[in-house]
Amino acid sequence: MPIDTSQPVFVLVRPQMGENIGAAARAMWNFGLQRMRLVAPRDGWPNPRAVAMASGAGRLLDEARISESLACAVDDCHWVLATTARGRDLTKPVLSPERAMQLAAGKIAAGERVAVLFGPERTGLENDDIVRANAFVTVPVNPEFPSLNLAQCVLLMAYEWQRQRVQVVHEVDAPGRHDWASALEVEKLAEHYEARLEEAGFFFPEAKAANMKLNLRNLWSRMRLTRADVQMLHGIMRQMVRWKERGGEAGRD
Amino acid sequence: MPIDTSQPVFVLVRPQMGENIGAAARAMWNFGLQRMRLVAPRDGWPNPRAVAMASGAGRLLDEARISESLACAVDDCHWVLATTARGRDLTKPVLSPERAMQLAAGKIAAGERVAVLFGPERTGLENDDIVRANAFVTVPVNPEFPSLNLAQCVLLMAYEWQRQRVQVVHEVDAPGRHDWASALEVEKLAEHYEARLEEAGFFFPEAKAANMKLNLRNLWSRMRLTRADVQMLHGIMRQMVRWKERGGEAGRD
Repeated sequence: MPIDTSQPVFVLVRPQMGENIGAAARAMWNFGLQRMRLVAPRDGWPNPRAVAMASGAGRLLDEARISESLACAVDDCHWVLATTARGRDLTKPVLSPERAMQLAAGKIAAGERVAVLFGPERTGLENDDIVRANAFVTVPVNPEFPSLNLAQCVLLMAYEWQRQRVQVVHEVDAPGRHDWASALEVEKLAEHYEARLEEAGFFFPEAKAANMKLNLRNLWSRMRLTRADVQMLHGIMRQMVRWKERGGEAGRD
Repeated sequence: MPIDTSQPVFVLVRPQMGENIGAAARAMWNFGLQRMRLVAPRDGWPNPRAVAMASGAGRLLDEARISESLACAVDDCHWVLATTARGRDLTKPVLSPERAMQLAAGKIAAGERVAVLFGPERTGLENDDIVRANAFVTVPVNPEFPSLNLAQCVLLMAYEWQRQRVQVVHEVDAPGRHDWASALEVEKLAEHYEARLEEAGFFFPEAKAANMKLNLRNLWSRMRLTRADVQMLHGIMRQMVRWKERGGEAGRD
């Protein structure tokens, strides 16, 4: 398979648990990332526990490039990001995940290859790894509880990549095909309610009637009504009128 | 404890596995969220597996409000968001996580109480739950592999809440206190290298010499150098000169 250079490679450096490698593959593939590299996985390779955990994302493991050293793993990359926890005394830029993936998208569009490094579960990346990075990424976690695991860190970086890459639609009024009521249909509904409620003596006292009618009109337009909703609301009012016209009958049931 | 109304409540609706409840608590607390509510947890409450998984976030479980029905769980909330997978035919707005948490932050600042609903692991929220929501949130996952689990969905929503709430610093040049070299120190370094490399015949041919010097100057300023870096670079050049002055000696070692 030709190398897909349109997305960053995610490099797991000396990962320990196969389960975490599989979970990281799932997290990547959830957001369309498929280029995984592994540096010296502790339990060797292939790892059946990784495969079992990856399930639908197993292809990423099949195609993962395995290296003995980080230097080999990123040999073709032009910009290397290292994920780290807070608080290191660093002489290189520290980026938010959002900013990091913005910059990555720009560099990739310009033909560069970008790698994101994730350290081993317990210890994180070591200084020997970190010297190979051009910049750092730190997830802004709660300082009282900064306990992201490997797959969660991968998930958040993959999510941010997706956010930068795809023009996410932030708001859709109502997906699917709906049979919305027209303004005329809503107008007729409003008139129906107004007429019946007038008869029923609802708009009382007189001084407040105009305002009460306004509020009711506002309610109909604030809800976006389908034609089925309009029919149902007509039906409710008709039924109340019928019930009233039956007079005391209901009491006798 | 008085109810903290400065953040949304996350409501797990009929969660099945205690482990997932614990993992959801961790995911929330990673981003500073602490108001969890549970509707009819399958295995009863308290749940020792949830406690074991939550570890550092156990307080969220201790303080979680348990309800038998969703109606009770959100009784005091003014704006209810339901997390759902793609593709429902809905007559209500569907929001990205980013947009949802933006709106939530605005509503909470205006004194409203906001709830975010998460469905049971296998089935997600049912129609009876969904009718109680004012809007939906859908994470823009890979349509070929939309397999987020409960705690991952909670993690992403909590992350977005944090992004909207905190003014995230997107880029820090170099955290920590560094002893950066002054322009004069860098200038002296450049002169040292230029002089020695001139002697060594590096700037050749003559026609390209000016440009080569420019490139070298550019290199010094592109790197941001500490005083220690400058000393090291001076030392490298001095050592090369000493080595050269020892003449053939090195060959005889």
